[in-house]
Amino acid sequence: MSDTFHSTLPLPGDLASTIDTPALVVDLDAMDRNIAAMAAFARQRGVRLRPHAKMHKSAFVAKLQIAAGAVGVCVQKTSEAEALADAGIDDLYISNEVIDPAKLARIAALAKRVKMAIAVDSTLGIDRLAAAMRSAGAAIDVFVEIDVGQGRCGVEPARAGELARHVVAHGLHVAGLQAYHGGAQHLRTPARRREAIDHATAAVRTALANLAAAGIECPLVTGAGTGTFVLEAASGVWGELQCGSYAFLDRDYADNEPTSDVPAFEHALFVKSQVVSRGDTHAVIDAGHKSHAIDSGLPKVWGRNLIFENGGDEHGILRTRCDTLPELGESVWLVPGHCDPTINLHAYGVGVRGGLVDGLVEAVWRIDARGCVS
Amino acid sequence: MSDTFHSTLPLPGDLASTIDTPALVVDLDAMDRNIAAMAAFARQRGVRLRPHAKMHKSAFVAKLQIAAGAVGVCVQKTSEAEALADAGIDDLYISNEVIDPAKLARIAALAKRVKMAIAVDSTLGIDRLAAAMRSAGAAIDVFVEIDVGQGRCGVEPARAGELARHVVAHGLHVAGLQAYHGGAQHLRTPARRREAIDHATAAVRTALANLAAAGIECPLVTGAGTGTFVLEAASGVWGELQCGSYAFLDRDYADNEPTSDVPAFEHALFVKSQVVSRGDTHAVIDAGHKSHAIDSGLPKVWGRNLIFENGGDEHGILRTRCDTLPELGESVWLVPGHCDPTINLHAYGVGVRGGLVDGLVEAVWRIDARGCVS
Repeated sequence: MSDTFHSTLPLPGDLASTIDTPALVVDLDAMDRNIAAMAAFARQRGVRLRPHAKMHKSAFVAKLQIAAGAVGVCVQKTSEAEALADAGIDDLYISNEVIDPAKLARIAALAKRVKMAIAVDSTLGIDRLAAAMRSAGAAIDVFVEIDVGQGRCGVEPARAGELARHVVAHGLHVAGLQAYHGGAQHLRTPARRREAIDHATAAVRTALANLAAAGIECPLVTGAGTGTFVLEAASGVWGELQCGSYAFLDRDYADNEPTSDVPAFEHALFVKSQVVSRGDTHAVIDAGHKSHAIDSGLPKVWGRNLIFENGGDEHGILRTRCDTLPELGESVWLVPGHCDPTINLHAYGVGVRGGLVDGLVEAVWRIDARGCVS
Repeated sequence: MSDTFHSTLPLPGDLASTIDTPALVVDLDAMDRNIAAMAAFARQRGVRLRPHAKMHKSAFVAKLQIAAGAVGVCVQKTSEAEALADAGIDDLYISNEVIDPAKLARIAALAKRVKMAIAVDSTLGIDRLAAAMRSAGAAIDVFVEIDVGQGRCGVEPARAGELARHVVAHGLHVAGLQAYHGGAQHLRTPARRREAIDHATAAVRTALANLAAAGIECPLVTGAGTGTFVLEAASGVWGELQCGSYAFLDRDYADNEPTSDVPAFEHALFVKSQVVSRGDTHAVIDAGHKSHAIDSGLPKVWGRNLIFENGGDEHGILRTRCDTLPELGESVWLVPGHCDPTINLHAYGVGVRGGLVDGLVEAVWRIDARGCVS
């Protein structure tokens, strides 16, 4: 199929200043430091790292994470797993429930090609998963998801044993527990995050006791995110961290009050934009919420004292009280409120080395799983 | 390039009930009625219709609109124009400012292939546009954009003549005025919408007088959207309507109090989703804000008395007070808050005929300009 974007993509070696706008630009120096810091943390604490690829959706970044020590990546959707497997990632965990038999057949086909794992939280889901795997003659690691405070997917911890027995009865392998508290990641104070993860830890312990009572071994508890992973790593129950945002860091995470023992991650993800219209008291840039997600608030303007106002799908409006407004044609870099859905809006990532303004383009990569929602 | 989506796309003739989720599903019966109603309105009022393709981003829908009488379509971005030209649309108006010389060179190249128009609101933009067109030996229609109350792009109405003279001085053709009040579209009461468009009409009249004083003819005033087009059509100054959302209609437009003289547009755009996890008091579906935009609020659940709660990027959470919760695996159709950025999240549209539940898939089309933000 044709690709509308090829004509406007920069080439490695191009000046960063020539990147067409709006563009998803990654500061590779900052990203490398973030990836190394998280890998070092996991090594030092003796926990596995399986970063969540729902964030970056690209084999390019996943391979860097795996090269730094990650055991593989998580994804959230069947089509995301397919896209990353096609792009060369061979150890994938769908940390989410799949109930549709046609999708489960696709997952079984994938499991014949790469190492696959999946989460379950219902007997119907387990029945259908088992049927699909049996039909394909494929094997998969199964994590029983428990609700540790998010109130979304997952069974009550006291039902973990019952579900795990159902997995075993089908001849499938119980790989452990999926225990992720998404809502805890963006709680602003360390005290509130600790309270949430203390609650989650108690829930995991309940589930572990329940599994033990059912005679089921639990090889691994997997979960955690960029806002709380230090707590999960210190809990004594989680053996694998699923953090995603740390590699790029978004504006919303920067709003969390940090704890002292967390690696200092840096903003590495930007949307480069350009002023296309200029009034006396405002400038209009070519990036609106088709270029950056606004579910976690509006973007911040990088390195300038400018106020970003929502200008709709295609525009951003900049005002200032104590800075000069950028001129027509001038570049402006935005720090998106939320990495994951922002990246999902773009076809390619552009990696620069040596700074956003004066650096060079080093890599251009496809967002392999962009739009893979099914 | 590979296309991750092909394996999961339905074929024409498939049962609507078998469409993989989440999917962007269009009720073709409703869409056809919407397109016909707007075309009839424009014919009856003697105004041209140039629907905004930033909404649907697909040649499939644009061709239906043109077949019903539209003169062409508007787009908002250079890459959007390229994608639709590549897909067979030959009359395109970029109703927005472009300031980057490389983009203007691409527009000039496009103008050699198809009929092109563009908006301007600065002398720098006009200078660069003229240079690009001269260099390519191409012609383009130029609309001077005036700010009619939105406070975004466009010059003050009293500066229209000055800019138009600058266009003429470069040997370019002044095609008229771009006068769009985006902020007026979603004002809830008819009185507030009328007030906004009365203000916009006065601004257009000021600009027309200013053009006349400068000795510049104004062949056309173009603008209007789905929330206010009846007012612009009745104003006596607008000659072309740019409505986009009418073809699909989103939840937000349904929240406007209607006026009696507006065609009764129907919801035609849905995100089909599926329950993947089920608690005692909530159901979790596989559609979050990577499947539907939430800039204009959360989606509504179609045909059911269910409350949609934000479940994050990949999930929606359903609760109910007076309906039964859907079961695991059950399909749920959402009406997105805002068409435009929702469609931009999807690679394909799936058109069904004969109802969302019992109908058949009639067409599958590419969202040609998905992600074309540059």
